[in-house]
Amino acid sequence: MVSLEDLKALAHPAQTKIVLVVLDGLGGLTRTSDNRTELEAARTPNLDKLAAEGNLGLADPVAPGITPGSGPGHLGLFGYDPLQYRIGRGVLEAGGIDLEMTERDLAARGNFCSVDAQGLITDRRAGRIPSEVCARLTPLLEKIGIPGIELIVRPLREHRFVVLFRGDGLEEGLSETDPQDTGKPPLHVHAEMSQATRAAEVANQFVAGAKQVLSAEHPANMVLLRGFSKYPNLPKLTDIYGVRAAVIAVYPMYRGLAKLVGMQAVRTGDTVADEISALESVYGQFDFFFVHVKKTDSAGEDGNFDRKVAIIEEADAHIPRLMSLEPDVLVVTGDHSTPAPFRAHSWHPVPVLLWSQWCRPDGAAKFSERECRYGNIGRIRAAELMPLIMAHAERLTKFGA
Amino acid sequence: MVSLEDLKALAHPAQTKIVLVVLDGLGGLTRTSDNRTELEAARTPNLDKLAAEGNLGLADPVAPGITPGSGPGHLGLFGYDPLQYRIGRGVLEAGGIDLEMTERDLAARGNFCSVDAQGLITDRRAGRIPSEVCARLTPLLEKIGIPGIELIVRPLREHRFVVLFRGDGLEEGLSETDPQDTGKPPLHVHAEMSQATRAAEVANQFVAGAKQVLSAEHPANMVLLRGFSKYPNLPKLTDIYGVRAAVIAVYPMYRGLAKLVGMQAVRTGDTVADEISALESVYGQFDFFFVHVKKTDSAGEDGNFDRKVAIIEEADAHIPRLMSLEPDVLVVTGDHSTPAPFRAHSWHPVPVLLWSQWCRPDGAAKFSERECRYGNIGRIRAAELMPLIMAHAERLTKFGA
Repeated sequence: MVSLEDLKALAHPAQTKIVLVVLDGLGGLTRTSDNRTELEAARTPNLDKLAAEGNLGLADPVAPGITPGSGPGHLGLFGYDPLQYRIGRGVLEAGGIDLEMTERDLAARGNFCSVDAQGLITDRRAGRIPSEVCARLTPLLEKIGIPGIELIVRPLREHRFVVLFRGDGLEEGLSETDPQDTGKPPLHVHAEMSQATRAAEVANQFVAGAKQVLSAEHPANMVLLRGFSKYPNLPKLTDIYGVRAAVIAVYPMYRGLAKLVGMQAVRTGDTVADEISALESVYGQFDFFFVHVKKTDSAGEDGNFDRKVAIIEEADAHIPRLMSLEPDVLVVTGDHSTPAPFRAHSWHPVPVLLWSQWCRPDGAAKFSERECRYGNIGRIRAAELMPLIMAHAERLTKFGA
Repeated sequence: MVSLEDLKALAHPAQTKIVLVVLDGLGGLTRTSDNRTELEAARTPNLDKLAAEGNLGLADPVAPGITPGSGPGHLGLFGYDPLQYRIGRGVLEAGGIDLEMTERDLAARGNFCSVDAQGLITDRRAGRIPSEVCARLTPLLEKIGIPGIELIVRPLREHRFVVLFRGDGLEEGLSETDPQDTGKPPLHVHAEMSQATRAAEVANQFVAGAKQVLSAEHPANMVLLRGFSKYPNLPKLTDIYGVRAAVIAVYPMYRGLAKLVGMQAVRTGDTVADEISALESVYGQFDFFFVHVKKTDSAGEDGNFDRKVAIIEEADAHIPRLMSLEPDVLVVTGDHSTPAPFRAHSWHPVPVLLWSQWCRPDGAAKFSERECRYGNIGRIRAAELMPLIMAHAERLTKFGA
């Protein structure tokens, strides 16, 4: 894979506009009734027209056989090898609730859990307490006193929360406290790297404090922590390619991921139509637009084949409006596959449609997994797409003389 | 390529069963009479049915243009990048005769050779002495006295033998003694790394002793040594993926290779039918089964196109019996190509058939090199197959959140 340093050296200014539409979990599997995938079953005349003019391919988000989470799935699409650039769980959760992190912060994902009188875990999720209970408990955790440390604790859904330890000298490299089993006490945090010694002390003080402030609570009378992570200092798209990049996404986690690589979040409503409106409203202000459509993934996770088909068709219906903006490069793909028959993220490669005036035609008649297999892009790693996109946008100059 | 450490972190317990059938040297080249490869000429209705339901692809055992030996060919299939994980010739030969190695052993491959009165080599293979002569001479070599060292010397075919130097402080990093030419004396062994100093002394003492004990022999009056190697401490399949793995192979070398990655050898008779019987007999005891069929390779090496076709057809005939075990994942492939027209191992990529319930259909009608080119697996490195297999067996969890 070409390094980001090399790509930065090749970057070349241009006035071109790029739109990357990510239909989350787009890739599918066939249903038995007609042997078609979700994308193949969908009526997508507008995408099909672009497929005929543009290029198709299949992208592995990480590598063959590897099922990505949303973080690696998107980092790959943004051009960052997910095996090289890793985002900690704490940071991802903070981004997922639009919680801004500073350089002095160490983030962690927390779970409320239940322990017995001996301190042994009886339920690792505290009976999945309602979100309202979680929201009542997190302020208690914020009041734990640790010298030199400010605590920011925010509730997530049910028993989950995110904590930011804000202070000096807090570095990554901590073990987690979840023993992954009941009948055991929460584990002591230890520094897996010497630089993390101070952070380990702080984390252990927090856990000890949590035990005290939650002692009268039931069933959530203790916490488990994992995914200790600093805000990653990723090279930004602007610095690499010189593009002003924007994210249009309904869900905060995807905005958070996009911000990690330097995209600016644009306000949008909840529907695909709203997202296209948002795109139109800021079209003059940016060069690169990441438009995220979540519901294809949700339908796949629910095993709802027909709903996933319907959302793909909804996205297709907005393509003419998008194309009337006259982007130089349009890419439609997914961050991973979420086949409705599989009801979960999967490892299957993701269909890719890339349209620009510089495509060698594939002769494809339909945007589908089957036709993508024969497309001109071939089968590539998702992180290799971004250089291809930038090339089609005439934003990369010649490598070597 | 995803590291074994990363794969280990993703491994997830499951009750699924995986069968990997390796038809040694499966890949072929076309004959002129009908422009078909061995696999294309073979009638394989059972494999073709699986091809229609499953996925096809082409795997490069090492990399494009690289012809693998049996060691790298199999290590690749087991998921170990052969460029990273290398098996010394001595270790491979020891495994090839079921000779157990200990941690204190340094193995080497030996050749009997002929030298003249001045000690210059006149024949690097001692006229390819019969195996019986070799078997008579190796006990002489075992009696060479080296303080602190036990010698285990076993005959191989013709002029070849394997020696284990058993003792403390014997490390890898030795030069070989074969000057690759006649008219020259055997080379002195020298330590290419400082840790191998003791081993070099021992090897040179062995060579000097061999000259003495063989002085009255003709034509095998001297030895040449190469491939000095310790038993490699490879991560085991059980440790990486949590599978209990078994090898069913007629030839000891393949059992030896499989043991290197933690497989347990299962007793089997000589025919494919015997191997399937062995598979049936231990099916409840393991999760992963490597079934090795040797004779496709032998037929290829002999240039016997029709015999290779017949062995492929014989393997195909046993597929229904194998499938009646209801494996979750079945893979049929080769460790490399041995095209009968080429009469040797070759660099051509190897056809792969992967069948599971989670395949996007290829629409293939036949398991053949031609159809494999259009298959959904695409063209991958052999070492990337194992993560894909484990994914289809639902034995890998999501990478990243």
